[in-house]
Amino acid sequence: MRPLGDSPLVRNDKTLVLAHDHGLEHGPKQFSGVEERLDPREVFEMATHDAVTALAVGKGLAETYYPSYEDDVNLLAKLNGGSDLWMGDPYSPQNWSVDYAAELGADAIGYTIYPGVNRETDMFEDFRPVQENARDHDLPIAMWSYPRGQAIKEHRSPSTIAYAARIGLELGADFTKVKYPRDKEAMAHAVRSAADNRVLLSGGSKTSDRDFLELVEDCMDVGVSGLAVGRNVWQRDDPYDILDKLEGVIFEDATADDVL
Amino acid sequence: MRPLGDSPLVRNDKTLVLAHDHGLEHGPKQFSGVEERLDPREVFEMATHDAVTALAVGKGLAETYYPSYEDDVNLLAKLNGGSDLWMGDPYSPQNWSVDYAAELGADAIGYTIYPGVNRETDMFEDFRPVQENARDHDLPIAMWSYPRGQAIKEHRSPSTIAYAARIGLELGADFTKVKYPRDKEAMAHAVRSAADNRVLLSGGSKTSDRDFLELVEDCMDVGVSGLAVGRNVWQRDDPYDILDKLEGVIFEDATADDVL
Amino acid sequence: MRPLGDSPLVRNDKTLVLAHDHGLEHGPKQFSGVEERLDPREVFEMATHDAVTALAVGKGLAETYYPSYEDDVNLLAKLNGGSDLWMGDPYSPQNWSVDYAAELGADAIGYTIYPGVNRETDMFEDFRPVQENARDHDLPIAMWSYPRGQAIKEHRSPSTIAYAARIGLELGADFTKVKYPRDKEAMAHAVRSAADNRVLLSGGSKTSDRDFLELVEDCMDVGVSGLAVGRNVWQRDDPYDILDKLEGVIFEDATADDVL
Amino acid sequence: MRPLGDSPLVRNDKTLVLAHDHGLEHGPKQFSGVEERLDPREVFEMATHDAVTALAVGKGLAETYYPSYEDDVNLLAKLNGGSDLWMGDPYSPQNWSVDYAAELGADAIGYTIYPGVNRETDMFEDFRPVQENARDHDLPIAMWSYPRGQAIKEHRSPSTIAYAARIGLELGADFTKVKYPRDKEAMAHAVRSAADNRVLLSGGSKTSDRDFLELVEDCMDVGVSGLAVGRNVWQRDDPYDILDKLEGVIFEDATADDVL
Amino acid sequence: MRPLGDSPLVRNDKTLVLAHDHGLEHGPKQFSGVEERLDPREVFEMATHDAVTALAVGKGLAETYYPSYEDDVNLLAKLNGGSDLWMGDPYSPQNWSVDYAAELGADAIGYTIYPGVNRETDMFEDFRPVQENARDHDLPIAMWSYPRGQAIKEHRSPSTIAYAARIGLELGADFTKVKYPRDKEAMAHAVRSAADNRVLLSGGSKTSDRDFLELVEDCMDVGVSGLAVGRNVWQRDDPYDILDKLEGVIFEDATADDVL
Repeated sequence: MRPLGDSPLVRNDKTLVLAHDHGLEHGPKQFSGVEERLDPREVFEMATHDAVTALAVGKGLAETYYPSYEDDVNLLAKLNGGSDLWMGDPYSPQNWSVDYAAELGADAIGYTIYPGVNRETDMFEDFRPVQENARDHDLPIAMWSYPRGQAIKEHRSPSTIAYAARIGLELGADFTKVKYPRDKEAMAHAVRSAADNRVLLSGGSKTSDRDFLELVEDCMDVGVSGLAVGRNVWQRDDPYDILDKLEGVIFEDATADDVL
Repeated sequence: MRPLGDSPLVRNDKTLVLAHDHGLEHGPKQFSGVEERLDPREVFEMATHDAVTALAVGKGLAETYYPSYEDDVNLLAKLNGGSDLWMGDPYSPQNWSVDYAAELGADAIGYTIYPGVNRETDMFEDFRPVQENARDHDLPIAMWSYPRGQAIKEHRSPSTIAYAARIGLELGADFTKVKYPRDKEAMAHAVRSAADNRVLLSGGSKTSDRDFLELVEDCMDVGVSGLAVGRNVWQRDDPYDILDKLEGVIFEDATADDVL
Repeated sequence: MRPLGDSPLVRNDKTLVLAHDHGLEHGPKQFSGVEERLDPREVFEMATHDAVTALAVGKGLAETYYPSYEDDVNLLAKLNGGSDLWMGDPYSPQNWSVDYAAELGADAIGYTIYPGVNRETDMFEDFRPVQENARDHDLPIAMWSYPRGQAIKEHRSPSTIAYAARIGLELGADFTKVKYPRDKEAMAHAVRSAADNRVLLSGGSKTSDRDFLELVEDCMDVGVSGLAVGRNVWQRDDPYDILDKLEGVIFEDATADDVL
Repeated sequence: MRPLGDSPLVRNDKTLVLAHDHGLEHGPKQFSGVEERLDPREVFEMATHDAVTALAVGKGLAETYYPSYEDDVNLLAKLNGGSDLWMGDPYSPQNWSVDYAAELGADAIGYTIYPGVNRETDMFEDFRPVQENARDHDLPIAMWSYPRGQAIKEHRSPSTIAYAARIGLELGADFTKVKYPRDKEAMAHAVRSAADNRVLLSGGSKTSDRDFLELVEDCMDVGVSGLAVGRNVWQRDDPYDILDKLEGVIFEDATADDVL
Repeated sequence: MRPLGDSPLVRNDKTLVLAHDHGLEHGPKQFSGVEERLDPREVFEMATHDAVTALAVGKGLAETYYPSYEDDVNLLAKLNGGSDLWMGDPYSPQNWSVDYAAELGADAIGYTIYPGVNRETDMFEDFRPVQENARDHDLPIAMWSYPRGQAIKEHRSPSTIAYAARIGLELGADFTKVKYPRDKEAMAHAVRSAADNRVLLSGGSKTSDRDFLELVEDCMDVGVSGLAVGRNVWQRDDPYDILDKLEGVIFEDATADDVL
């Protein structure tokens, strides 16, 4: 088994990734109400919070801003991503090579796979050299595993999420980010399906502090390794407050009630 | 002729591959009733049984667990495979390079080909560098040869299975795994069609001990070189018991009656 | 952040690119009324005007004429472009490699992306090695970012242009050329969406001096870094006159009224 | 002009290729009535007959059996071929690289082209590196040139066969195997169309000794360089007898009547 | 500007290319009435005529016959071309690499582009490395520029031919072969559109001596650099006579009347 305990993405065996690829994937409309965060420095600053073990961004943000933050932030290089102007079958183009990510000082690699889509076979084959090249550079690999396509009737059904988590293990990821499969037992099953692969909860769209923190608490209870969260942090009025609370629930065994 | 007698996959001129790529190809639902085997250590342990000459797994399982078992298990690196969420024409994407498999210590290479499918020509061309690169590393090659597609009226007809076995020989495999063509004489014809290529019976879905062992006995009688089996071992309540019995039938010339 | 202040494309923190890829993209009909400019020397001469910080041309023009102008003109190598005889989905083929552009002495790289088109994923993936190879050669990168395709109802809507500008930042351009989004506030939003990426106004088709200069003034007011202009210069009877005026508005804080 | 006179494929300026790729292209059903020849040793033995200047087989047969015959048989490495289970447009995937063929000791390269098919352009482009790589290794090149596709009304019309032969010359083959264009004068025209390229008659399906030998005699009369024959030899009860007779007609100027 | 004056393709600033790729592009039917010229030596002999500055042939003819003529003939390596058996959208596959052409002693490279076809973007991208590799070998590049496809209503309209000529300049050719746009003024416009790129008249199908020579004279009058001609030479009963006359009109400022 690959040792990840001393990886920069893991603290006390837990992980909190702050994800910020929304400018590419969804565009400036995502910054409605928090326009000042169109300046990526705002989000890089959040990533210096102790709770954040890595910041996931694409190439452009990384090469422009990461040099100023490399002492305080761990970089998870999100290699692929497309715009939501695109109407084609789900597929995520690779915009960044592993070699260049490593040269910029990335601490880990992130890659989206959509199992079940028409181009599943392309996506799996795209992932092969990414994964193997990351190993050459000794970089841990996080897979965003989001089943889609004709065969997927429910994106969050227990069996779909368990399969998503398993695919991360089978294809050679170290972390697999999945959506919440509606209930705690289903998440426990996904965690078991992933075996030694670490499951990260996908933060999803913005909800109330209580709903969000209770969800995270439930996940941590059943063995999830942590969280990859974007909008639930940087779209909030006070992202530092929610990061303080997440730190309690993820790294310090606190309950949602404790921190609220 | 290539000498395989001293290959780690062959003992007494016979072979038993324990296959465990089901987590990728079919997902966690395959572990219903044997959930504890979602932990791949359970199956790696089975592979330490004397009857097993190699364990066939994909990249993720191999890099996570094989380092702990490399003294006790021979690794057959299963290079390609897709999820069953995918609804496209049959095709199996390559998730693992030969070079990386060799670096991890693989003892042999496994690759699925679907002769007759719309992308047959792609699959043949994908196989070319895999086969030749395996030769560079001196790794034996096992082909999973499963004809499918418009022209195949019956997947298990004698002529289809004989053709499947021959394709293994023609394209440069050392072992070719085929399904059982309904009767013993048809299997004998497939073995003759494969000439010096070794035919392995595909274990198929779980059946009773007697049915399964008699099938294996029939195959061994007509010159099949052994078995590549997954579900008929690791889905059983007692996988070690069936491995004991298979050891008798495959390596020790015992009949099904003898071992039952 | 990458320092561009000392880039040959930037003077007083501002940029004026003279673009001349129309012979390829639209053909000789664009030279109607100014036929003598079918001779590229005419346009290379214009590019020696002090106001012009770079000339954007394709490979053929560059290798034929740039050697005679390399002391007086900065070359922005426009790498991709197609003919308007083509009736397919929007896509721009790459006609020039970064390495060869660098060998010819290019000072920067230009590349067109059409976010939202059917081949968006191809275009993003085409851009990856171009962008990374340009970094290897230390060449700044200008993206022509023109959303098109089924999802784009209005090419110049504020949200589309803001997204176009953001994509330049996210994919690793240094300059992003966008169309004018109808009003000044929308352009300000696009500039904020691009963060440290520099936004260039696309000059568009020929208009009156006043209309054109007022448009440029409005853009400079809200933080646009300059202009990439073709037809509004080289299709004019007196291109040197409009360049004099643009120099005032872009580099010397003059208003349109001042220079008219 | 390339000198082929001292090529192992040519004796007395004539050539007889024994072709045995039928196990891949058509499957074991081709061996009906001569089942013992499913063992490729049987056919390698035939290739030791003095009349045979080369044996054309695919990679798998070559690497398994050629090492035992390399002193007695010249190897024509047939690089591409597909199964007849495939229902797609005619195309022949490449299963063997020139480099590996050379490493195994091949004396010549064989490649199938289907001029006129939907993927003609792919096939021509596939052939380019094969042809050039064969030149690097100093290996003569034999093209199987079989026009097919929408434009081909009659596969064996004189103009089609003449074009097939010419394409071999134009694309850089040394030998071009074509079907018989119904009459002797048409074959003479094909030979003239091929100029210095050597035309080989494609043996076709099994016929009577007399029909077959008279056909060969007619071809030799009009300048054909020899024969590439499979089924008309190895499907016969006595393949050595027909080889004796072919030796007379091809290499010793005998008539069909002489040898019968 | 690239100096071509001392190129082997140019004499007195003029060029006459004898083109002979018809055996591939149209087949042996093109030799009806001049069957002896199926032997390429006949056409290589014509190319030794003083009027011919280069012979354009494909790889097979070049490697078979050029070694015997390399002292007397300049070789223009025609890299791409398909058969007319093909019914697909216009596209021309590349059958010859620049490196191998250079190794055979080519003096220039020829490449066909069909602007406007469905695969225009592929053709432009195919041309990129060809053009750049030719530069590495210091070989001049001739483009056959023939617009086709849905948008082309008239292949020989003045605007289409002017665009064709411009594309040669823009993509980096040195010579661009275009069809005659119906009248002299239109050809003059095409020449101006090509700027320093040299325009060659495409000879077209066989016509009378007078018609052909007057056409050439008209073209030379308006600045065309010469002719690329095939059928109007090698399909003639006396090709040497027409070459004598072309020499006068192209290289010696003679009129058609003068030489007739």
